[in-house]
Amino acid sequence: MKPFTLLGTSIILRLQLDVRKVNFVDIATAVGKANGDIVAMDVVQSSNEATVRDYTINTKSRPQIEEVIKNIEALPGVEIITVSDRTFLSHIGGKIEVRAKRPIQNREDLSRVYTPGVANVCEAIAQDPYKAYKLTIKRNTVAIVSDGTAVLGLGDVGPYAAMPVMEGKAMLFKQLAQVDGFPICLDTKDTDEIIETIVRMAPAFGGINLEDISAPRCFEIEKALRERLDIPVFHDDQHGTAVVILSGLLNALKIVDKKIEDCKIVVTGMGAAGVACTKILLSAGAKQVIGVDRDGILSRSVTYENPVWEEISNITNPDDVQGQLADALVGADVFIGVSRGNILSKEMVQTMAKDPIVFAMANPQPEIDPEEAAGIVRVLATGRSDYPNQINNVLCFPGIFRGAFDCRATDINEEMKVAAAQAIASIITEEELNEQYIIPSVFNDKVVKNVRDAVVDAAIKTGVARKIPRDKRKKETVE
Amino acid sequence: MKPFTLLGTSIILRLQLDVRKVNFVDIATAVGKANGDIVAMDVVQSSNEATVRDYTINTKSRPQIEEVIKNIEALPGVEIITVSDRTFLSHIGGKIEVRAKRPIQNREDLSRVYTPGVANVCEAIAQDPYKAYKLTIKRNTVAIVSDGTAVLGLGDVGPYAAMPVMEGKAMLFKQLAQVDGFPICLDTKDTDEIIETIVRMAPAFGGINLEDISAPRCFEIEKALRERLDIPVFHDDQHGTAVVILSGLLNALKIVDKKIEDCKIVVTGMGAAGVACTKILLSAGAKQVIGVDRDGILSRSVTYENPVWEEISNITNPDDVQGQLADALVGADVFIGVSRGNILSKEMVQTMAKDPIVFAMANPQPEIDPEEAAGIVRVLATGRSDYPNQINNVLCFPGIFRGAFDCRATDINEEMKVAAAQAIASIITEEELNEQYIIPSVFNDKVVKNVRDAVVDAAIKTGVARKIPRDKRKKETVE
Repeated sequence: MKPFTLLGTSIILRLQLDVRKVNFVDIATAVGKANGDIVAMDVVQSSNEATVRDYTINTKSRPQIEEVIKNIEALPGVEIITVSDRTFLSHIGGKIEVRAKRPIQNREDLSRVYTPGVANVCEAIAQDPYKAYKLTIKRNTVAIVSDGTAVLGLGDVGPYAAMPVMEGKAMLFKQLAQVDGFPICLDTKDTDEIIETIVRMAPAFGGINLEDISAPRCFEIEKALRERLDIPVFHDDQHGTAVVILSGLLNALKIVDKKIEDCKIVVTGMGAAGVACTKILLSAGAKQVIGVDRDGILSRSVTYENPVWEEISNITNPDDVQGQLADALVGADVFIGVSRGNILSKEMVQTMAKDPIVFAMANPQPEIDPEEAAGIVRVLATGRSDYPNQINNVLCFPGIFRGAFDCRATDINEEMKVAAAQAIASIITEEELNEQYIIPSVFNDKVVKNVRDAVVDAAIKTGVARKIPRDKRKKETVE
Repeated sequence: MKPFTLLGTSIILRLQLDVRKVNFVDIATAVGKANGDIVAMDVVQSSNEATVRDYTINTKSRPQIEEVIKNIEALPGVEIITVSDRTFLSHIGGKIEVRAKRPIQNREDLSRVYTPGVANVCEAIAQDPYKAYKLTIKRNTVAIVSDGTAVLGLGDVGPYAAMPVMEGKAMLFKQLAQVDGFPICLDTKDTDEIIETIVRMAPAFGGINLEDISAPRCFEIEKALRERLDIPVFHDDQHGTAVVILSGLLNALKIVDKKIEDCKIVVTGMGAAGVACTKILLSAGAKQVIGVDRDGILSRSVTYENPVWEEISNITNPDDVQGQLADALVGADVFIGVSRGNILSKEMVQTMAKDPIVFAMANPQPEIDPEEAAGIVRVLATGRSDYPNQINNVLCFPGIFRGAFDCRATDINEEMKVAAAQAIASIITEEELNEQYIIPSVFNDKVVKNVRDAVVDAAIKTGVARKIPRDKRKKETVE
């Protein structure tokens, strides 16, 4: 039996059965004894002596799965070939494909899309490389680039193991925003090598989505790429998270009737997401943000080796509060955690100002247990889908790239990010808004359209748009 | 009016018409006066005063197109917004897209293909990176990589202008062999930078198709990548061309009833294609190959700066013939030209052995004019689709990668290339074979299947296959 990893409580067993020794009833009995249900059976191969079948079996728990497997292994004439679950099966062969938009049906088609006809198109672009936006996939294609150093909660799993996340992202880009995304997982962790590699492979792409690159390297990589490339570069772990946090916070503040300008906001975890979150809060008008990491509150009276912390310490904490998380939280209106599980105690929350807002985004264990927070926190958001108010990047990245592409933006700047956050927040009407509903669902079909519109407007306003989309032109003119 | 480039004799004019000054009859008359036909008309925009319409107009010649445009420009109240042709239109927005294989229909789907479920898949690959072949797109995806230095006959047009060729190639990969190809056009011409970039971005890919990279850099790049990567690396301009030339030659030799071992073969043009062609001829058993470039015959008594020429001069020309092309050709059985137009004269052909075989592949002008060659050459092949016997790489690359992928080959070696050539040649039966038909059509649906089968067999035989495809297993066992 090959090694396997299991997820849910539904499995698919591929069994090779010696038909002289075992029959269907034996299998059903073995499964039933462990309280499993056979919900489907498919014949893979059949002969007089042996048959190979896939049994899909539902159970209620992981121990039941193990019991099912034990019972079946004990049967004479049965060999378990593979044990799969639906998550693994949905990944076989990868999740995305590259297709022609139109088929090549005859020699005339071939001579247009390939030699000799394509030469004229190449020549037109050689004379004016900007025509790549018109005549190649560039205008709608984003590179989803990772080095695999900070994949989900798993850490440095390397470029091969990062691929399933990047493929999933490409699926979401296409399905939600008709953006073509292609995963590029890099076999290097060297900052300069990553930068050089991306710069060199940029011509095919209209934008770069950086993903799951560990801090502080991610800051340097993003900064260098934004300077060197004329296409938008967006590190989703930083800015996607920051945008969605801001959108949730804008709605939470409506509930408690406070203004962001007047709030004391504590951000804990000064990695990729925490830094970007701090910056977007300042861009959105916050005056009193305090950053906290393992060593305590970031203070302007300390010098940091990490240049990004040095920068953050100088633009936050205006009163130069010193100490640890508990010290920062006294009188705070908002806690934003992008750090580790269980670092926020009930006692700390009780020192916060009236109507505390807590965004506890650590995964899988939030900074405070939601059950514990209930009753003492006015508005709670987490990164998990099994509690209300899930902060999910999927709300941001498809629409923000759709907008950037539609106006051929050279950058995704702070104004565009704040606009995206406001657009997400505004989807929930005043009537709908309540403590349990500050963030729309990722399946809400207004999200991408609203974000796209707001991002295009902001890009035009800040002068980074190279094209005004037809729907944003004042007079009806033709392209 | 925007600048435009024209190809065929069918154009699409986008006209803005002042409806108070001009009507349909005026347009039709202007087109008709130039002997053009309006074959389609689409309204793009309409208002009380102005209307924008697309007119598709067929003509018989380029001067007629110009006359049509002149006549329309002369009309009052008409503004020509764009002039397009069908080739350009078929490139708008690019020719390929990235799609999900299955849609995400609900939250359960989302949690499998993206967080949190995908984390288990990532972990499985982190533990065993070879699982990337099972759980990501790697096993079916080829990077189509170019630096744009030797695009078609155009030369160094740069990475942006190379994209339409690479996209066309991706279309052909998918349509003909169900291979997912993605274009990567590199913004560097530096050999080491190209090598490093490709090595770093290799994890997502199961193979590398190098394309349109100029000689001699292409030799060094391919060599280094084959050494450093465990996935097949194939420079199509070299080996695709060489494979198809060999397949044509094998069939041509049947017609003249000669054996490759006994033939004197002159290859002229010692660039990417010429070098690979020379090597595959030797692999296929040829004993007497003579290479010729601008400076004359490659000889072992000369020392060459180009290491590839140095190598070729030592494995060819056993009798150490000296001189120019004309000297090499005396008594030769086969001429293979991958050089420049019109370098082969009628007189030179007349010094060749009986039943001369001439492959004149220079584009667009072959080494000898086909009309001139008629009568004195027994079998003629060119690179053009408007003469019989077109040597077209499309016959090779889809099937060769299909085969390499199906057996997870670590390399595409000489044996696999020769096997591919034999497979292409064998599609034409003895009854079908004649001077005008030595190469099957790219639309012949046996090509990919035959090449794939032969390549898989050769890979298994030479020990580079990491997997035996189900249809090649001797006993019926299950994966």
